[in-house]
Amino acid sequence: MFGARCLLRALRSCTSAPCPRHKPSARLSVRDALGARSTNGERVKVQGWIRSVRSQKEVLFLHVNDGSSLESLQVVADSSFDSRELAFGSSVEVQGQLVKSPSKKQNVELKAEKIEIVGNCDAKAFPLKYKERHPLEYLRQYPHLRCRTNALGSILRIRSEATAAIHSFFKPSSKIKVPEENFFNVPAFLTVSGQLHLEVMSGAFTQVFTFGPTFRAENSQSRRHLAEFYMVEAEISFVESLQDLMQVMEGLFKTATMMVLSNCTEDVELCHKFIAPGQKDRLEHMLKNNFLIISYTEAVEILKQASQNFTFTPEWGVDLHTEHEKYLVKHCGNIPVFVINYPLALKPFYMRDNEDGPQHTVAAVDLLVPGVGELFGGSLREERYHFLEQQLARSGLTEAYQWYLDLRRFGSVPHGGFGMGFERYLQCILGIDNIKDVIPFPRFTHSCVL
Amino acid sequence: MFGARCLLRALRSCTSAPCPRHKPSARLSVRDALGARSTNGERVKVQGWIRSVRSQKEVLFLHVNDGSSLESLQVVADSSFDSRELAFGSSVEVQGQLVKSPSKKQNVELKAEKIEIVGNCDAKAFPLKYKERHPLEYLRQYPHLRCRTNALGSILRIRSEATAAIHSFFKPSSKIKVPEENFFNVPAFLTVSGQLHLEVMSGAFTQVFTFGPTFRAENSQSRRHLAEFYMVEAEISFVESLQDLMQVMEGLFKTATMMVLSNCTEDVELCHKFIAPGQKDRLEHMLKNNFLIISYTEAVEILKQASQNFTFTPEWGVDLHTEHEKYLVKHCGNIPVFVINYPLALKPFYMRDNEDGPQHTVAAVDLLVPGVGELFGGSLREERYHFLEQQLARSGLTEAYQWYLDLRRFGSVPHGGFGMGFERYLQCILGIDNIKDVIPFPRFTHSCVL
Repeated sequence: MFGARCLLRALRSCTSAPCPRHKPSARLSVRDALGARSTNGERVKVQGWIRSVRSQKEVLFLHVNDGSSLESLQVVADSSFDSRELAFGSSVEVQGQLVKSPSKKQNVELKAEKIEIVGNCDAKAFPLKYKERHPLEYLRQYPHLRCRTNALGSILRIRSEATAAIHSFFKPSSKIKVPEENFFNVPAFLTVSGQLHLEVMSGAFTQVFTFGPTFRAENSQSRRHLAEFYMVEAEISFVESLQDLMQVMEGLFKTATMMVLSNCTEDVELCHKFIAPGQKDRLEHMLKNNFLIISYTEAVEILKQASQNFTFTPEWGVDLHTEHEKYLVKHCGNIPVFVINYPLALKPFYMRDNEDGPQHTVAAVDLLVPGVGELFGGSLREERYHFLEQQLARSGLTEAYQWYLDLRRFGSVPHGGFGMGFERYLQCILGIDNIKDVIPFPRFTHSCVL
Repeated sequence: MFGARCLLRALRSCTSAPCPRHKPSARLSVRDALGARSTNGERVKVQGWIRSVRSQKEVLFLHVNDGSSLESLQVVADSSFDSRELAFGSSVEVQGQLVKSPSKKQNVELKAEKIEIVGNCDAKAFPLKYKERHPLEYLRQYPHLRCRTNALGSILRIRSEATAAIHSFFKPSSKIKVPEENFFNVPAFLTVSGQLHLEVMSGAFTQVFTFGPTFRAENSQSRRHLAEFYMVEAEISFVESLQDLMQVMEGLFKTATMMVLSNCTEDVELCHKFIAPGQKDRLEHMLKNNFLIISYTEAVEILKQASQNFTFTPEWGVDLHTEHEKYLVKHCGNIPVFVINYPLALKPFYMRDNEDGPQHTVAAVDLLVPGVGELFGGSLREERYHFLEQQLARSGLTEAYQWYLDLRRFGSVPHGGFGMGFERYLQCILGIDNIKDVIPFPRFTHSCVL
């Protein structure tokens, strides 16, 4: 199976320009160079952008970063290599020997034999300044350049790892057989977004998920809304209660987070140290406790008894506002809390009727988390034909949703699902205040810069 | 790390309704039930949809499918269970003992102790008919029900596996360390689609990819166009030539296909047997041969010398049409063929100028494959400031693309990338004629049914 790749790798080596006197150097990422075990003078080639330059009498020190890790690779060169063009921001290709570093700051350094300037950087015009730590707000003005900073580099590496963690939660790699721990042992789909479509799929495959961009015309400039955001949605057939859904939601949050923490240690540390001090402890607190469950009715009672004055007076039958969500999470000791069973009148037609009274509710669930508020939203879906028919009639939607009713005519099953906002998830685990800093190209009301 | 999951699984068992006299049955997917190694009377619960019913004097045979595999599970029940409601299409929950089957048709069968009808199926109204093999065109009318057929079930399981294979090609799981075979050892991003944005990222991370939905207002009813399709895009920094890109493209095609073939054997077999006879051999032919490379100029020469009459006369400087692509692939012995170096005038402003003449070309590459035509498109990007500036000025785009020019001012690097249409890839490996059959919810001109 890997034959093709090996062949290509062999071809690739042939095309790299041979270094005179030496055999062709192996191209290494900065991450692989830093992690090299043997440093017995191996000849390598490293490519990246200069992060710092320090010129001493006879030696020149460069730090080169290629985005593969937070740490840069130290390049040590003879001062004869010194040149104006070897400046912060320039791209370079360095060939030389990977050796053990005499300094304690790093294990390995690259003794340069050849340094090629690939692309200059106009330092005066470059919005990123050498040795400055730019605030995230400043960097937001330069979406095309900000990934060159430590902060955005770390956040985006974590985003990538979290994406992988979510895929892996839902669909463990077929190479790793862990049947006992495999929640979603049936197909995972990247499909058009939308719960109703997932319900179609869940009528043939018992567990499905989708992960992709979602567009909402949210007219909000808040620090937790975007017009385009990523969403993880899952739909599960043959569920018995909201409990079944909440178990998967808690499992997804905790398993993905553990994976990110163990695979992106340095990057997460940077966020927890410089961007959101104290976040490490807050996150540990969330991970080690069981998430709590309260009903909407209980939540309203808690809010009514609060000593705090709210802008919007809490009342049964009215939606929870951000200020209410914040209070509830705090009240729960900053442990994520599921709020379940919302008023029927507040929720869309497809949610399952609890048939209770006089305060009529549906089997809906939201997960509120510290710092962010609502992170997940989900529900059992109305699988009973006549209940759904009535709800559709009440909303005047019967004609448009005939296909959706059909799903209840032909082998209907109890099912439910949820969605998790991916950017809010990243905000929550990293403690990043503004949602615009956890997505490469934020789009929001009146702003679509790139 | 898997602590949370195990806990949840334990909780989950507690919530399932206990079967009187027995300990609670373990819930199994059909796939897991079929693959069970020990069948010493284990009590299990299986949920799914009835695919067939056969009633004999004293025994009732059901086949239950839950989408986890092509094969259904045979349920054997006492005839006392017989009921009108146990019909094709109904959803059921069956509890019983998993035992060795006396028949050679299957290893395992489920001896039913309890059968619960979860949802009836109105057989008269149900558009899928028992024991009929419906043509794909017929099924296209029922996007909300067609995943319940063998054909669509197989195609969508393969789609899911191919998605995983592509992710795994670009970002091998961090649990499987294969540094030598790791092309994309730096972050993989699911981001807003679009090559120009990937280029931004490639100015900080040397290898990036994205995989998600793409929207094009293609006014085409053809069997290979959709208004919404999925695209894999990759961008690589520090490339030296088109050769570098073509190696990754060929590697992606071959590695992902091998993975699909080995993980979805039965599903692929169904397609290759019933939907596209002969496709197995055609695919093997593609996999075992090195892809070919010809220049656009050579391609036009081949077409000019063809005995075939084309609707569009082949001519240097004019785009290749579908009929031309088909001829070229056939001419190349039905091996995928890279066509490189297209006329500058035909291609967008960002492609790298080959500075040749008098027939001025850019470093673009398309991969043509049997049955489908163009599958990949890519190019080296113009990384030289002054060349790009001139191209932008010529297209009147200088002002809008100042940010794109900036990428060439601050540490520019030679780079290039490509995109692959995911649905066309599936068509190509499976031999599926119409693109609307390899995506759950096809959207195309004048049609957005669901």
